[in-house]
Amino acid sequence: MSLRHALLALLTARPMTGYDLAKQFDVSVAYVWHAPHSQIYPELRKLEASGLVSAESTPRGSQATKRTYSITEEGRAELRRWVEEVAPPLPERDAAHLKATYYEFGSFANARRQFEGHLAYHQRQQLKWQIHVAQLEKHDTDLLRRRLAIEPEHTHDAIVAYKVHVYRGLVERARVEVEWAREGLALVDRLEAAETARRSAGD
Amino acid sequence: MSLRHALLALLTARPMTGYDLAKQFDVSVAYVWHAPHSQIYPELRKLEASGLVSAESTPRGSQATKRTYSITEEGRAELRRWVEEVAPPLPERDAAHLKATYYEFGSFANARRQFEGHLAYHQRQQLKWQIHVAQLEKHDTDLLRRRLAIEPEHTHDAIVAYKVHVYRGLVERARVEVEWAREGLALVDRLEAAETARRSAGD
Repeated sequence: MSLRHALLALLTARPMTGYDLAKQFDVSVAYVWHAPHSQIYPELRKLEASGLVSAESTPRGSQATKRTYSITEEGRAELRRWVEEVAPPLPERDAAHLKATYYEFGSFANARRQFEGHLAYHQRQQLKWQIHVAQLEKHDTDLLRRRLAIEPEHTHDAIVAYKVHVYRGLVERARVEVEWAREGLALVDRLEAAETARRSAGD
Repeated sequence: MSLRHALLALLTARPMTGYDLAKQFDVSVAYVWHAPHSQIYPELRKLEASGLVSAESTPRGSQATKRTYSITEEGRAELRRWVEEVAPPLPERDAAHLKATYYEFGSFANARRQFEGHLAYHQRQQLKWQIHVAQLEKHDTDLLRRRLAIEPEHTHDAIVAYKVHVYRGLVERARVEVEWAREGLALVDRLEAAETARRSAGD
């Protein structure tokens, strides 16, 4: 149910078409909640059917129309309800760590390749989130500028600070994964050196 | 597909009934990959149908029989194949952090309650994983003792070290979440104090 609430939150900045929403989604929500665009359009229609957003059709060119969605009062109430809801934590499901538990069934080269992939992925994530923290701190995203333009000034600190806190937390988490992968590579080196020493002692 | 491979890995320690497997699952794999017991039994039957495990029926009491599963050579090959497969990272889907991005739509009391829940949960996880690291380091789990009893001694270091590395990584990750929640609580205090000051200045 997170996608529908993320869409409602995006629409608090300004009314948007499905196309605008998808674009904004990719440079904000998607950093923490991945969803393909193909899920966004059906979700918008469901939100409209339940009265949480309203849509206005305006002509685009001479043939087509475009639909612009706005959040309704009911939509704002539903957004607040969701934010105030304490959700149970998701069950642990970590495929990378599960597999690493069993690296002894593969080769040292495999363990190394796996840790290297983990390292590269989390370095990219860390960088992406660092850039987003810097953008948020400078109010340098279209969405945040529009939100701040319509909200009373005394609310600006909270609006920015919660988002910065989230992305700083993700940067830290990525940093831990990067470190874990580096230590994993050092572990493989150690295990392989011991194995090489054992084999040459056996010769 | 992680559950089936985790079951294969468990069976490398010794042949087990479905009941034994479910019990062992809860004190090993489940720390990193949650699955309800109701998924384990059908998965075992699928593994048997594909020849990755074999089952032997023996009488239990005068009426019932119990089925004991063993990993086959094909099962060992499939386990190695999975360990050597580089899986793409799962898309980011972090419901807690997504919601925290929007805490300004709720009250300070709500933000505090959410961070407190996050803190308590990750403190429990951290403790659970710390205990498991200590168990693994002392070879103090039934599964690990049985694995080590049947594997050549020169492989013991890798068998233990990969597992210890995984659970140490999870301890570190939980530590980051605990810290993030604590800093979140400090942020709420700061925002609420500023809001209180603003209101009394307005009086």
